[in-house]
Amino acid sequence: MDVYLLLIGDEILLGQVVDTNSAWLGQQLALHGYRVAGKMAVPDARADILEALDLAAGRAQIVITTGGLGPTKDDITRGALAEYFGSALAFHQETYDRIAAYFARIGKPLPESARLQATLPEKATLLTNKVGSAPGMWFERDGKVFVSLPGVPFEMQYLMTEEVLPRLRERFPGRPLAHRTLRTAGEGESTIAKRLEAFEEALPPHIRLAYLPSLGQVRLRLTGAWPHADLPPDADERLHTEVEEYAHRLRALLPDLVYGAEEDTLEQVVGRLLQERGLIFGSAESCTGGYVAHLITSVAGSSKYFAGSVIAYSNDLKIKLLGVRAETLKRFGAVSEETVREMVAGALDTLGVDVALSVSGIAGPGGGTPEKPVGTVWLAVGDRTRIVAQKHVFARDRIKNIQLAAIFGLNTVRKFLLNAL
Amino acid sequence: MDVYLLLIGDEILLGQVVDTNSAWLGQQLALHGYRVAGKMAVPDARADILEALDLAAGRAQIVITTGGLGPTKDDITRGALAEYFGSALAFHQETYDRIAAYFARIGKPLPESARLQATLPEKATLLTNKVGSAPGMWFERDGKVFVSLPGVPFEMQYLMTEEVLPRLRERFPGRPLAHRTLRTAGEGESTIAKRLEAFEEALPPHIRLAYLPSLGQVRLRLTGAWPHADLPPDADERLHTEVEEYAHRLRALLPDLVYGAEEDTLEQVVGRLLQERGLIFGSAESCTGGYVAHLITSVAGSSKYFAGSVIAYSNDLKIKLLGVRAETLKRFGAVSEETVREMVAGALDTLGVDVALSVSGIAGPGGGTPEKPVGTVWLAVGDRTRIVAQKHVFARDRIKNIQLAAIFGLNTVRKFLLNAL
Repeated sequence: MDVYLLLIGDEILLGQVVDTNSAWLGQQLALHGYRVAGKMAVPDARADILEALDLAAGRAQIVITTGGLGPTKDDITRGALAEYFGSALAFHQETYDRIAAYFARIGKPLPESARLQATLPEKATLLTNKVGSAPGMWFERDGKVFVSLPGVPFEMQYLMTEEVLPRLRERFPGRPLAHRTLRTAGEGESTIAKRLEAFEEALPPHIRLAYLPSLGQVRLRLTGAWPHADLPPDADERLHTEVEEYAHRLRALLPDLVYGAEEDTLEQVVGRLLQERGLIFGSAESCTGGYVAHLITSVAGSSKYFAGSVIAYSNDLKIKLLGVRAETLKRFGAVSEETVREMVAGALDTLGVDVALSVSGIAGPGGGTPEKPVGTVWLAVGDRTRIVAQKHVFARDRIKNIQLAAIFGLNTVRKFLLNAL
Repeated sequence: MDVYLLLIGDEILLGQVVDTNSAWLGQQLALHGYRVAGKMAVPDARADILEALDLAAGRAQIVITTGGLGPTKDDITRGALAEYFGSALAFHQETYDRIAAYFARIGKPLPESARLQATLPEKATLLTNKVGSAPGMWFERDGKVFVSLPGVPFEMQYLMTEEVLPRLRERFPGRPLAHRTLRTAGEGESTIAKRLEAFEEALPPHIRLAYLPSLGQVRLRLTGAWPHADLPPDADERLHTEVEEYAHRLRALLPDLVYGAEEDTLEQVVGRLLQERGLIFGSAESCTGGYVAHLITSVAGSSKYFAGSVIAYSNDLKIKLLGVRAETLKRFGAVSEETVREMVAGALDTLGVDVALSVSGIAGPGGGTPEKPVGTVWLAVGDRTRIVAQKHVFARDRIKNIQLAAIFGLNTVRKFLLNAL
């Protein structure tokens, strides 16, 4: 089933906002068995919107528009839709009351523009927006569905998840689909693909494996589609069980790389492991400059297992706060196995934590040498009984080198906690 | 002059990548006086690409495509363009040699696919890509220009800046334009707009002011367009001078908010001020969890003015490493003026720095109380002679509260260094 996306708004064409909506929609629709056949962005102009609706309807059974539902006079999507569907615009008291209640709840005065936002095409089935003011709209014509959603990402996502996807499923019932995503860190797509060659070849045709890479991480998504035309009542369950079994096999093939599933993040998984073990964590950071601590504390509730960190950018602070010996720095340098080992020992002591990670490296662009090029990073993790150190060379720009050092560092903490180092 | 953007690639429609290219292109083109009339994304499919080229050519004088120039068999843009322009594909030795030299330079073996990437439509004017393998292409037909660029953002940006924009300027010489962007932090768009009402009203019609907001910051961009049909030789210079004068007035109207111009970031500006004064900085962070230190150290060369930080998430570490008195924490709480003041004094001491920033707050989603709701943040900045403290309430989600606290914190450091607090 094909979907065409229509993004409405001058701000998209002017480049004032990065369009994250269509990537989110593309992913969600793919997960539910729909294919985005194309997308188009048009300005806030009546003629452009009408023409684009025609073009989109010619290419897909489902047309989803985002944007142009706001409270200002630039927001003309409501009027354009009314015209396209030959429908009058009418004031909708219920929507007005809901917008009024919404503003009361967030403690803001009801703007005059609420009347405009509650003036809607009569032919629209309204989709209740519980997280904002503009309702979504659903139209049908000639067997095709047109959905209009606000452009604000979290409002669009709310309406898509709560209203649109369930309705689409009902309107166009398809074959059951099942997904399972595993998350890996520490290796690239091509290395993983080599290790999974036999697994991929042995996959039945109705189960596919997709690689979704991001910085230092790769998500592996298995998608199963019910393979027969006949649909037993337990088809959904059987398909899910089958995909789940393949996910188990996949996990067993990559025990060193898989850290979680679905929406897990590395920092959440590390936090969970610490909490389960009743351990308190801290970091001693040089080149990452606090980025490890930032990732850990971006998780709500991290105060239960994170005490704090020492960011020792200067050698003086490595000596003073982490007890690194001046002799070590002089002999081996700040970016060395010896230094990161002493940094861990010092962090355990200074921060009074059970487990500590240390990172020292050359983020760049300056500071590299032939022996230690830009991107060279030493990291160590340890507790009071053992310390493990590793060297990596990330040949990226400064920001990515910092981010990769933090991701590899957290992954090393995870493995240390699992006794897998 | 209108431009139509064509994004080619399945990965965009599947949502596997967020399309940041078109926002960048929209901004750059706007800066040079071009208007993006629309954009369309199509899959890696011959028929879709050909149809989209026709549609785009019907709507603009300039068509820019990105993507589909890679080395795999999915990348069919070269072939589609050859067909569209009725041109043969031919092996181009010079491009092949350049790709070979590029791979030698980055120390990687030359892949077989280099032959494919060097097989190009004969009618194309090639645009040399010095930062990657795929060259850009320039075609003309019926007075319209078609440009094909790789989808990798930094390669696309390089070719656009170095090759495409200068050629467009020559091919379609327009009236001179001049831009000046000022960067502000600490107030929202509507507050700033109120303060600039008189300024905006007095602007001549050929000079416009745009508000470009992001988290905690607003960029103000002045754009001047030469107002007459006659073009004296010094038109460009006169226009730049005029825009510059308005930028001076603007800056004078918002002395407390403007921190820089053009591509300046707050962390760069703070770094520059510290370096000019020969001062060393450090931070004492609770709720920001290292994010201030991360921003500061994301700037290359920050080791010249940044020594390190204490991330004291637990009260124990606030006491032990920052010398905050247990009595203070008990009586006023960790999120209080008293605590952040003691944190600054402690940081100056422990880190041995000249200037320190401290931050303590409730990032959320838990931990709020009626007196101190989620988003309440106390921050203090000081040296050995004075400490200034401020309270803010950011009613956003956890990550945004952390980011806003860091941005407001850095802005406070900036003002402290300028004696403007």
